[in-house]
Amino acid sequence: MRQTITLTLLFAFFVTSAVGAAERPPNIVVLFADDLGYGDLGCFGNPTIRTPELDRMAAEGMKLTQFYSAAPVCTPSRAALMTGRLPIRSGMCSDKRRVLFPNSAGGIPESEVTIAEALKTAGYATACFGKWHLGHLPQYLPTNNGFNYYFGVPYSNDMHVVRRGDPPLPLMRNLKTIEAPAFQPTLTKRYTAEAIKFIKEHRDEPFFVYLPHTFPHIPLFASDEFLDKSPRGLYGDVVEELDWSVGEILQALRDLKLADQTLVIFTSDNGPWLTKKNEGGTAGLLRDGKGSTWEGGMREPTVAWWPGQIPAGSVSQKLGSTMDIFTTSLKLARVDVPADRIIDGVDLRPVLFDSGPSERKSVFYYRGQTLMAVRHGPWKAHLITRPAYGRGKPVTHDPPVLYHLDHDPSERFDLSADHPEVIAEIMQLVKKHRTELKPAASQLETMISTQ
Amino acid sequence: MRQTITLTLLFAFFVTSAVGAAERPPNIVVLFADDLGYGDLGCFGNPTIRTPELDRMAAEGMKLTQFYSAAPVCTPSRAALMTGRLPIRSGMCSDKRRVLFPNSAGGIPESEVTIAEALKTAGYATACFGKWHLGHLPQYLPTNNGFNYYFGVPYSNDMHVVRRGDPPLPLMRNLKTIEAPAFQPTLTKRYTAEAIKFIKEHRDEPFFVYLPHTFPHIPLFASDEFLDKSPRGLYGDVVEELDWSVGEILQALRDLKLADQTLVIFTSDNGPWLTKKNEGGTAGLLRDGKGSTWEGGMREPTVAWWPGQIPAGSVSQKLGSTMDIFTTSLKLARVDVPADRIIDGVDLRPVLFDSGPSERKSVFYYRGQTLMAVRHGPWKAHLITRPAYGRGKPVTHDPPVLYHLDHDPSERFDLSADHPEVIAEIMQLVKKHRTELKPAASQLETMISTQ
Repeated sequence: MRQTITLTLLFAFFVTSAVGAAERPPNIVVLFADDLGYGDLGCFGNPTIRTPELDRMAAEGMKLTQFYSAAPVCTPSRAALMTGRLPIRSGMCSDKRRVLFPNSAGGIPESEVTIAEALKTAGYATACFGKWHLGHLPQYLPTNNGFNYYFGVPYSNDMHVVRRGDPPLPLMRNLKTIEAPAFQPTLTKRYTAEAIKFIKEHRDEPFFVYLPHTFPHIPLFASDEFLDKSPRGLYGDVVEELDWSVGEILQALRDLKLADQTLVIFTSDNGPWLTKKNEGGTAGLLRDGKGSTWEGGMREPTVAWWPGQIPAGSVSQKLGSTMDIFTTSLKLARVDVPADRIIDGVDLRPVLFDSGPSERKSVFYYRGQTLMAVRHGPWKAHLITRPAYGRGKPVTHDPPVLYHLDHDPSERFDLSADHPEVIAEIMQLVKKHRTELKPAASQLETMISTQ
Repeated sequence: MRQTITLTLLFAFFVTSAVGAAERPPNIVVLFADDLGYGDLGCFGNPTIRTPELDRMAAEGMKLTQFYSAAPVCTPSRAALMTGRLPIRSGMCSDKRRVLFPNSAGGIPESEVTIAEALKTAGYATACFGKWHLGHLPQYLPTNNGFNYYFGVPYSNDMHVVRRGDPPLPLMRNLKTIEAPAFQPTLTKRYTAEAIKFIKEHRDEPFFVYLPHTFPHIPLFASDEFLDKSPRGLYGDVVEELDWSVGEILQALRDLKLADQTLVIFTSDNGPWLTKKNEGGTAGLLRDGKGSTWEGGMREPTVAWWPGQIPAGSVSQKLGSTMDIFTTSLKLARVDVPADRIIDGVDLRPVLFDSGPSERKSVFYYRGQTLMAVRHGPWKAHLITRPAYGRGKPVTHDPPVLYHLDHDPSERFDLSADHPEVIAEIMQLVKKHRTELKPAASQLETMISTQ
């Protein structure tokens, strides 16, 4: 036994030192918050939520101020991150049901290529810790979609409505429920511990760790150590515990001497759930929040970290999207990006290494299956606007409402009358987009037969 | 001649080394922006205004997230900074004319003690570079109020309205107009150069430098080097030049080996001028702006810097006010705080050195001579609310509207019905405040006879 270990260590040493860091592709860690707002971190201007670890991550890395999720709600946003594709292409969105529910029968289609599947082909160890929300029937779970290991809850932490027939919220390991209802106050701590354990166990091979936190989605829970500690109240407690988790992950990477070979990206799936009042976050100076295609719904507080590669203390305004994490990860792993389908992600390396412009020139804002707005360069045209929640009806704009987001990030001053040429250019993009688009059948509308 | 210089240098060396840094009180530098919003700096969450120097200042010092001016407009705010007293006590506010105009006959009363006057008694060299706005008749100008030297414009840079009979905007040196109209595109550069020259000349004695910038008050001007450079447009150009100025000042202090004996505070006189659209700034997540007693009108983006004394990279949520700069400066200079009058400033040293709680427990929000709101701890009660500009009438609230600012910095959720005991406590403070208050006759209502 001892001999085996020694041999393994020797082999690992050989791989690491002889083939070398230049050959081993970097580790990739994606830390993903749920419903965290653009203005919820200290380094993004929050006055009372204390996030020293994320502030430090930004000081050692890069703050990205114009980085987007691909949808203003959970399931489609996560599907886009996993596949590098707009959810309309994978069927992971719907105008009827915005996300997957415990009685949903659909999930991420087998035909989709996830980051985990792609990185696995390059020898990555892959694991997911946290909220999946891309289907909870076995075929849709992480371990059937490229992840070697899964520990977490399969959907949102509020999805245990008794009158809807929901089961107690399950906590799963791989394909098995190990706790129901999941004890939520320690979820953040347990995801963190599991992730660090996995990183330690796989330190000698490239790894992909996807850590989609359950929080600050409501209901809010923090562990005893963080409860009643934040001046911001319970929401602050929960975000401050996520901040702690980020610090633990980065420290583990430093301790394992992996910091200089690991890209870590922190971001969120969509904007703050404003209708939850003080149990939701803030989008800072951005308009509206979760569920909306105003900036507050889809622009995310994003920090990237890779000591030695990403310039310390840098701030980038270049456009980026969670879908770009797919393409960038594959490029870093020297895996071919699938050529048989449209991939919406771009290679963000020039942004992260501050070596050139972003390949991303545009952002498409979908609400369900409906294209609501398009950003091109600094300009954003809203074809349709609609309040995020409540009884607000959609309003179609012809011509579209036009904002200059670099000048007017809060979307206050409609410039459509002054810039018909910009609108014409954006409408050309819309036309091209629609011509190329082959929407997939929605995965969100089929339900498990309950009787 | 050479001998004189050598003797002077020897003497300076003797003073510095033998009597030592422990004996020489610290230099104090106040960098004061005009109409800069809470959300206008990178480190306070702005996505497109680039402020690397202020971000660095914060990384080397302290970001203060709950720091207030004493009024939501210019003249009263500056009077409070200079005297450590609410403007109602000095007469430097009015319900009829919000600020001083070129045809105003009033100014800061001789009976007031300015920071400069107080520090001068402790041997400080004192200078003001920039916009004064505390009276422009000779007796009110800086050099008659404790400053050895003055270079700047006496009031706001938009105050040259021909139909009102305003003269061209003067640029003054001490009591003399040296340029009219002042050439505004180079004001920031010239204030900066003059301030650095003064610092160099007075490196061997304690100095107080007050640098109240003319910008980003409208009309906006930037020098050629900054014009058309910021993604945020002209407003961004102007703020980015202020940021450059901050960097120059701090670098001069480093180069002169004065960094460890100089307290530098950067803040603003009031919130962003929102009605100026993209020529005004943003209050970030705070409500409303300049002219208003909502948070956006009076909470300022504040950074304090003193290497070796203020913990690097710290963030403080403790309450502070520009009036506290008065008291703190006097304490640092070992000058007695005037005992013959009410001083509203408190000693902020426990906050800056992170050694204890803030002595400041409350904030009084005045609009002109009217008390509109009171903050006590995390709670803020609005007695009267009123839109900052336009035809909005004041609305008196009984009971007051109540917000928990730590939980709800955007003032969205009125909790007055749930917390009558908090309102009762705040109304006791109001009663005590009003009992002690002896409002001075307003200095803002008398006009120079023009014919």
